[in-house]
Amino acid sequence: MTTGVRRRMGVEERKQQLIGVALELFSSRSPDEVSIDEIAAAAGISRPLVYHYFPGKQSLYEAALRRAADELAARFLEPPQGPLGARLLRVMGRFFDFVDDHGPGFAALMRGGPAVGSSTTNAMIDEVRQAAYEQIVAHLGVAEPSPRLELVVRSWVSLAESTALLWLDGRRVPRAELEQKLVHDFAALTAVSAVYDEQAARVLTAILAEEPADGPFAELVGRLLALAPAPGVPAQPAR
Amino acid sequence: MTTGVRRRMGVEERKQQLIGVALELFSSRSPDEVSIDEIAAAAGISRPLVYHYFPGKQSLYEAALRRAADELAARFLEPPQGPLGARLLRVMGRFFDFVDDHGPGFAALMRGGPAVGSSTTNAMIDEVRQAAYEQIVAHLGVAEPSPRLELVVRSWVSLAESTALLWLDGRRVPRAELEQKLVHDFAALTAVSAVYDEQAARVLTAILAEEPADGPFAELVGRLLALAPAPGVPAQPAR
Repeated sequence: MTTGVRRRMGVEERKQQLIGVALELFSSRSPDEVSIDEIAAAAGISRPLVYHYFPGKQSLYEAALRRAADELAARFLEPPQGPLGARLLRVMGRFFDFVDDHGPGFAALMRGGPAVGSSTTNAMIDEVRQAAYEQIVAHLGVAEPSPRLELVVRSWVSLAESTALLWLDGRRVPRAELEQKLVHDFAALTAVSAVYDEQAARVLTAILAEEPADGPFAELVGRLLALAPAPGVPAQPAR
Repeated sequence: MTTGVRRRMGVEERKQQLIGVALELFSSRSPDEVSIDEIAAAAGISRPLVYHYFPGKQSLYEAALRRAADELAARFLEPPQGPLGARLLRVMGRFFDFVDDHGPGFAALMRGGPAVGSSTTNAMIDEVRQAAYEQIVAHLGVAEPSPRLELVVRSWVSLAESTALLWLDGRRVPRAELEQKLVHDFAALTAVSAVYDEQAARVLTAILAEEPADGPFAELVGRLLALAPAPGVPAQPAR
């Protein structure tokens, strides 16, 4: 039921359409498996016309990744209000929304490989990691992170990535649980580094101080204290 | 002070020599920056002769990576004796030895990119990750890991990778501290998942039960209990 009149798109509009079509296809199959022919067909234009806008698959792929990277970085933005645990949990919810929406494209990208690994794509991935790092640091209220606190935050960002990738491979654990687990992991990794670093200790103290009794960190600490016997004391044998 | 007589090497011996020379060069500069000419010069043979043994830089690179991957996987082998914390700490020591010895090559490889990212190299990296995963699981005394315990171990392997990469970038934290921190991180991540998963809880209980009072986990728990106020209780304000 169309009018038969196809409106001519401007250059920028057409490019944006092609990027959207590509991202849609990459959400169900790896970019390796998606051809320019399929992208052309899905956009309702000819293959040569796709090449008119994007000189090769790599340039279309990079443009699609640019849009996805900007979108992902934006999901780490969170108002600096309320307990940190709740803020991080909202960020993780939006992160998993993104991973859920872009599954195969996200997995292919993070795993690298011939079709997706280039200096340009690696630089974009690093930009997103950097944006995530800066957002988290801003929430910690730390102007100049110590090398150890920097390591906690950056390695936690990488933990979130690898957890999402492992989740995509079979989805055997509910994502809501993993979102909460990653917030707990953040507290746990900060706690470990608090042993080595005064700044990490201050962050941990501040996190726990502003945490409501029903917040995610409080729940974790309560359950752990109930679970863990004092070290050196014989516990129940593993079943 | 040579005799002037150069012994002819057999094919396999020459290949192994070239792999060794390449790994040596990759230990101080990224494979991107090392030319076949340099490898030929360092091995004392002509460039065409290098191509006789390896048809291109990629094939020499992959052979070098094969040797390095086998060597790295072997470092995760550890006798199943003594407390788990001490075992993991020895493994981390050998892992950081490797990272230290192969710095720029390791970093280039893990970061991917045009010269180093291919299906072959990615498959080799995944093999090493899998070997590390299987070794750790074997030490936990678990025949069939639950999805959540699998996630803990695999994501910890990825945490060890990213921590090593961040360390290589400036070496601002002593490596001995990071080796210990990663063992603590393992306990902390297991503890978080123990809240969600009975198998992880059993592993945590077993770890703590066999831990000597002066072991790495016991030290962590003691320091944390001293540090963390009860949640919901106002703590010292962050300085």
